[in-house]
Amino acid sequence: MFVSDVPASAAALFTRNRFPGAPVVLGRETIAKGRLRAIVVNSKVSNVATGHEGLDNARRMAAAGAAALGVPRDEVLVSSTGVIGVPLPIERIEKGLDGIAADLVTDPIAGAEGIMTTDTHPKALSIAAGDAVITLVAKGSGMIEPQLATMLVYIFTDAELNAETLRRLLMEATNVSFNMLSVDTDTSTSDTCVIMANGLTGRVDEEVFGRALTAACIRMAEILARDGEGATKLLRATVHGAASDAEARRIAKSIINSPLVKTMAYGADPNVGRLVMAIGKCWDDTLDPESTAARINGVLVLEHGMRAAFDEGGLRESLAGDPVDIEIDLGVGNATATAFGCDLTEGYIRENAAYFSS
Amino acid sequence: MFVSDVPASAAALFTRNRFPGAPVVLGRETIAKGRLRAIVVNSKVSNVATGHEGLDNARRMAAAGAAALGVPRDEVLVSSTGVIGVPLPIERIEKGLDGIAADLVTDPIAGAEGIMTTDTHPKALSIAAGDAVITLVAKGSGMIEPQLATMLVYIFTDAELNAETLRRLLMEATNVSFNMLSVDTDTSTSDTCVIMANGLTGRVDEEVFGRALTAACIRMAEILARDGEGATKLLRATVHGAASDAEARRIAKSIINSPLVKTMAYGADPNVGRLVMAIGKCWDDTLDPESTAARINGVLVLEHGMRAAFDEGGLRESLAGDPVDIEIDLGVGNATATAFGCDLTEGYIRENAAYFSS
Repeated sequence: MFVSDVPASAAALFTRNRFPGAPVVLGRETIAKGRLRAIVVNSKVSNVATGHEGLDNARRMAAAGAAALGVPRDEVLVSSTGVIGVPLPIERIEKGLDGIAADLVTDPIAGAEGIMTTDTHPKALSIAAGDAVITLVAKGSGMIEPQLATMLVYIFTDAELNAETLRRLLMEATNVSFNMLSVDTDTSTSDTCVIMANGLTGRVDEEVFGRALTAACIRMAEILARDGEGATKLLRATVHGAASDAEARRIAKSIINSPLVKTMAYGADPNVGRLVMAIGKCWDDTLDPESTAARINGVLVLEHGMRAAFDEGGLRESLAGDPVDIEIDLGVGNATATAFGCDLTEGYIRENAAYFSS
Repeated sequence: MFVSDVPASAAALFTRNRFPGAPVVLGRETIAKGRLRAIVVNSKVSNVATGHEGLDNARRMAAAGAAALGVPRDEVLVSSTGVIGVPLPIERIEKGLDGIAADLVTDPIAGAEGIMTTDTHPKALSIAAGDAVITLVAKGSGMIEPQLATMLVYIFTDAELNAETLRRLLMEATNVSFNMLSVDTDTSTSDTCVIMANGLTGRVDEEVFGRALTAACIRMAEILARDGEGATKLLRATVHGAASDAEARRIAKSIINSPLVKTMAYGADPNVGRLVMAIGKCWDDTLDPESTAARINGVLVLEHGMRAAFDEGGLRESLAGDPVDIEIDLGVGNATATAFGCDLTEGYIRENAAYFSS
């Protein structure tokens, strides 16, 4: 449970999956007022594909959290993550929430540990924004390609900002961070990103705050990608010179989502052909082989659409490290985008083939 | 080399990748006349990302094939498959083609063996169409998600059909077969599907021929999917009750392309949550959780968007077999589509992480 000492302005973004979990359905309703006091999260059971009973259980969970804190129940947002199609053990959750107010601590790592599933480490970071602080707590490792939303990411600040501004800044930040993140192209039914600003430090410069928020979200997207199921390294693809933002984003995503590029990063082989394939398969985008160049970890590997001569041994050595940076210059416009992914390894297969859903 | 005794009507479809190989660029030119006598194919080097020299080499390869047979060079189509960005060893190919006419055999398996790369077995089949015969010879195992084209598939028939009819029937057949096939979402730069009809058996009923061609292409798509890199089983997803053909196709593809569904098939776990996720992430399509049902290998696992009660042990046992069939009823319309894929295993990772591009 994440709690603010005073009521906070709040904004949230949720999954673009047509089978949203009950907490997402309820969350869209809860966030409408732009005001939150607390967030209650459980792991192990996601409360998805559970019908009306699932929605009732989500409401009971919010009510139990509110009762434990003595705050209005419509100021408590709930999230659930874990197995799909299994009823929430709501009695156990209600029992657990009873008296929880006495156990609250100030270390965000405690919250990050509490919401882990297949994550290999707790994920939290803080950044200064003028006199205020922004703290992010997140989880996520598999079933990750958020679409206009994200995995579970909770952002807290003592800056004073209204809900409308928070929502705009959150959308700007997620647009270049969590929405450019993909571990496995699989969009979860539970993605949730919430920001709460309780104003205790007072006003901050909006631009300073927005820049800090964006930088923190990009860093957290990198942390989530790097801890993708079975991953051994972060994979970053930056596209320059695209005809439009949408095309730059689509091509950057195509690269980090290509299984052949991901296994190439794992195998540390500078495979120019796979890069060419992953760009070229974006059939509807503006591409001209003759103007296309590519670099891997700074080394020019493709020029005018043809494989360039380069020191293969040296590049193999650098590819064995972490992260792997791929830069593409399409040479057809001025738009740019960066996407965040990870390599694909036997670990992903083992983790997901061994997973039992019940 | 594939040769017809007499000039044949012909049609071809090529990759939707914006970085097509030189043989694809030349092939689009060659097929324009709708007439072919032979096809020359090499493996190991794909002649992609090789610039103007690559196009010259493709022309030299066609010319050498034509000279070996004593036929016009614009009636010889060339294909190349293998590593990208490496020059074609054209002198070796020219030497190899010299005198090849004496070595031709009638067994299609010989040709299928000659064009294998990471395939684990040669791929060829024949089917009757009235009095005529249709023979398909194909290769393909990784970098497979053809878009309005296919991997290397060569189709031969002694039926009499003009080039225009062939093209129409080929598009109808590939639309429900190779265009619904994906091993790894990665669209090759060399996909090519050619049909040659030399008419030696005379006219056939067009509908009979079209049905046989479609059935043969679907079976070949299944063979290609089943031999996907590292695959242990065929994965088939059929969507019923969709609002449109395009939506049915997109959702069926979403299922067979989901890494989490693919590893579920490998792990033989009836994971209803992953199915729900893979359907629901098709955000722009017409979906209603309440009307959605799903079956795995004939067993009802999802009803009204909620997990159904089923015999998990029994279904796990059936999932351990091959193929795995997933059926979805969206309950929002009348459109149907089937997609063909395979499971995702450590074998795919090993094969592609160990691959060295030079």
